[in-house]
Amino acid sequence: MSDELDIYKRQGFAHVLGIGAAPALVIVDFVQGFTDPAHFGGGNIAAAIECTVSLLELARARGWPVAHTRVVYADDGSDVGVFASKVPSLRTLVESSELSRIVPSLTPIAGELVIRKRQASAFFHTELAGWLAFRRVDTLFVAGCTTSGCVRATVVDSCANNFRTIVATDCVGDRAIGPHEANLFDMGQKYADLMSVAEIKASVGDNGPV
Amino acid sequence: MSDELDIYKRQGFAHVLGIGAAPALVIVDFVQGFTDPAHFGGGNIAAAIECTVSLLELARARGWPVAHTRVVYADDGSDVGVFASKVPSLRTLVESSELSRIVPSLTPIAGELVIRKRQASAFFHTELAGWLAFRRVDTLFVAGCTTSGCVRATVVDSCANNFRTIVATDCVGDRAIGPHEANLFDMGQKYADLMSVAEIKASVGDNGPV
Amino acid sequence: MSDELDIYKRQGFAHVLGIGAAPALVIVDFVQGFTDPAHFGGGNIAAAIECTVSLLELARARGWPVAHTRVVYADDGSDVGVFASKVPSLRTLVESSELSRIVPSLTPIAGELVIRKRQASAFFHTELAGWLAFRRVDTLFVAGCTTSGCVRATVVDSCANNFRTIVATDCVGDRAIGPHEANLFDMGQKYADLMSVAEIKASVGDNGPV
Amino acid sequence: MSDELDIYKRQGFAHVLGIGAAPALVIVDFVQGFTDPAHFGGGNIAAAIECTVSLLELARARGWPVAHTRVVYADDGSDVGVFASKVPSLRTLVESSELSRIVPSLTPIAGELVIRKRQASAFFHTELAGWLAFRRVDTLFVAGCTTSGCVRATVVDSCANNFRTIVATDCVGDRAIGPHEANLFDMGQKYADLMSVAEIKASVGDNGPV
Repeated sequence: MSDELDIYKRQGFAHVLGIGAAPALVIVDFVQGFTDPAHFGGGNIAAAIECTVSLLELARARGWPVAHTRVVYADDGSDVGVFASKVPSLRTLVESSELSRIVPSLTPIAGELVIRKRQASAFFHTELAGWLAFRRVDTLFVAGCTTSGCVRATVVDSCANNFRTIVATDCVGDRAIGPHEANLFDMGQKYADLMSVAEIKASVGDNGPV
Repeated sequence: MSDELDIYKRQGFAHVLGIGAAPALVIVDFVQGFTDPAHFGGGNIAAAIECTVSLLELARARGWPVAHTRVVYADDGSDVGVFASKVPSLRTLVESSELSRIVPSLTPIAGELVIRKRQASAFFHTELAGWLAFRRVDTLFVAGCTTSGCVRATVVDSCANNFRTIVATDCVGDRAIGPHEANLFDMGQKYADLMSVAEIKASVGDNGPV
Repeated sequence: MSDELDIYKRQGFAHVLGIGAAPALVIVDFVQGFTDPAHFGGGNIAAAIECTVSLLELARARGWPVAHTRVVYADDGSDVGVFASKVPSLRTLVESSELSRIVPSLTPIAGELVIRKRQASAFFHTELAGWLAFRRVDTLFVAGCTTSGCVRATVVDSCANNFRTIVATDCVGDRAIGPHEANLFDMGQKYADLMSVAEIKASVGDNGPV
Repeated sequence: MSDELDIYKRQGFAHVLGIGAAPALVIVDFVQGFTDPAHFGGGNIAAAIECTVSLLELARARGWPVAHTRVVYADDGSDVGVFASKVPSLRTLVESSELSRIVPSLTPIAGELVIRKRQASAFFHTELAGWLAFRRVDTLFVAGCTTSGCVRATVVDSCANNFRTIVATDCVGDRAIGPHEANLFDMGQKYADLMSVAEIKASVGDNGPV
C-alpha cells in the first residue's frame, strides 16, 4: 500500500498546519457507552481515554477552552433521523442513560462546554464553532472516539470551519484498528496534523501558547 | 481484518436505509483536475466517471433533481483557509482554470444545480440542503471523487441532514484504492447504503420512485 | 407611512407563497419567563398563547409535525456568548429554572420535538431543519414570541432553509406593539405569508394537507 | 411609543457590547440594483453608500478584513427557492447583470472577500463565519442595505455566530424610513451596538484595534 500512497505526496497533500496562538481541546464522545465492547466500545478506546487524561490536564493547566461531547437522543425518540436509523443502537443514548455519561476520569469542570449532539460531528448543528470563535481560538486539538466515526467527522468540520486542527493520535480510539489507522491516514493527508501527546507537550513547551 | 470487523455487526451497525419516495443525485467534483494524476486524479476515478454517465442518464430520465459540485477558490486567494493550507495545490482550482471545469461527459443541463464549494463536503456552507428540501427529496444518491475525501465528507453531511444516503459504489473513485475501500467500509457501516448502479437500476425498476 | 411603503409594491415584494402539501408547526419560546412582564413578557403575548392553543389542536388533529423551542443556557454560564451579553437577563433561562418551562397549555406530547436553543432563531445550530426535512415538510407555520425577536429570526431562517413560511398573526406576540407590527410588516413583505388562525383553518378545510 | 418601549429597559436589554480587539467590516449588498428606486433602491440608500466610503477607507487603513456581499442567482433559475418566490424580482440578480455589480465607489480590492449569496443573511450558507474565524475577528462592523432586510438578517446571524456586532447607523440604508428605524431599534436592543461612523472613528482613535 505504501507505493500506492506515494501519489498523495506527488499531488501536494499533507502540509503541516502547525499550532497557532490560541488552542482549545475538544473531547469527542468519551462516554460510558463507548468503554464497553458490549455497547460501542472495544479496540484501543480504553487506552485513548487513559492518554486523554494527561492531555486534559495540559489544557486545564494552560487555560485552553475545553469542550466535551455526548450523543444524546430524546427519551421518546422524537429526534431520531437517518443516523440512528442506520445505527439503531444509538437510540439507547438518552439523557438518563448511564451510557451517555462522560467517563469519570474526564469529568467536565465548571466553564467547560458540554455539547449534546445527535450526529457524528461535534460541530454539526451545535454551538461549538461559535463557542470557539467567541474565544478567538485558532487551533483545535481533537481527542475522543471513534477515530473512524465521530472523530473523523469532527475533524473534517473543524477544518471546514477554519480551525487549525490537530489530532492527538494516542488520544483517539476505535473499536477496530483497521479503520482507526485508515482514518488517521486520511485526516493527516487532508484535514489535520497528527501529533502524539508527547509531541504536543514538547511543542507547546514553556513558551507555547497560553 | 474480517475477524476484527465482526464487532460492527455485534454492536448493531449497517442497517439498511433503503430508497425513499423522492431521490436526487449529487455528483461530487468530477472536474478536469481530478481526471489527471498530474493534478488530483489517478486510481479508479476515470472508471467512476464512465459509470456515472449511466447513473446521470437514469436520474434525468426519472426527473430526479441533479446537483454537481466544483471546488472553486477566488483568483486572489482571498478565501483560502485551513483546507487549502493543508493541501495548497487546491488553490489552483480557480473559476477560470480548466481544472475546475466539469468533465464533458457529465456537463450539467439547465435546471441542474452547480455548486461552488471550498470545503470537502458538498453541504458545508452551500445551498445544497435547502435545495433538496425545497424539492422534498428524501434520498440522495452520491457519485463523485474522491471516495476518501469529498465523497466521504458529503455522505456524512447528507446523513446528518437526514437524507437517506446511498453511495453508488462504482460511481465513486479515488486516487488510491486502499483509502477508497476503507471509506466505503466506514460509510456502509455508519452513514449510507452501498449500491452499484446495476443494483440501483434494479431497485427503482418500473415501479420505483418517479 | 402608507405612502412611503408603496415602494414595496412597485418593486415586486409580498407575493403569496401559499400552503404546500406537508405543513408543520413550530412554537417559539412560549415558556413561563415570557408570560410575565417582570421577566420577558408583556404586550400581547398572553393573547398569542391563548390563540396558539387552537392552532396546536389543529396541528395535532391533522398529524402535522410539531416542534417547540425553549431558550436554555448552561447552569455555569459556559455557553454564554454575544446574545446573552447584549441581553444578560437571558442567562436566567437555565434548565432547572421555572422560567424556561413551556407554558402548561402548550405542553409537548410524545413525538413532538423540544429544541433547546441559545440564539434567537429556532434553526440556528439546532436540529430543526433536518428534522423537518426528514418528515418532507414543505410549509412551516410559526407561532410564538417575541414577534420582533425569536419569531422574526426563525421566520428569516425558515425562508432561507426553503420552507414556505406562514406567520400565524394572532399566535405571535411581543412585549410592545410597535415592534410587533413593524416586524409583521417586514416578514409579510419578504419572507412569509401572514394568516390568522381562522384563515389557516379555512384554507386547510376538509380537503387540505393531511 | 416611547412609553411602551420602556419595558425593554426594565427587562434588561441593550447592554453595550463594545469594540473588541480584532474588527472586520462587512458591506451588505451595495450593488447597482439597490441604488435605483426602479429596482430595489430608494430612501436613504444613496446616502448610506456615500457614508460607507469613509468607513471602508478606515477599515483599509487599519488593515481590518473586509467582506462584500452580492445577491447572485443562477442564470437558469436553478437555485430559486422560497425567498425568490416571495420576492420574484430578486431573480433579475444574475451573475452577468449590471444590477448585481458592486457600486463603483466601493469596488473590492485584492484580498477582500466577495460573497455570492441567495438569502438575506451574509452568513447563511456562505463562507463568512469561517473566514472571520480564520482571521480571529471578534467584532463585526456592518454597513449595507437594506436595514430591514439583508442587514437585519446579517446582524442577527453575526450575533448568533458570536461576533460583537456593531451597526454603522449612517452606513445602512433602506427604501423606506419607517422600517429602517424600526429595525435599528430592534437590532440595538437585542443583537448589536449602534454607532455612527464618527463615533466609530472616535472610538478606535489612535490607540484602537489595528
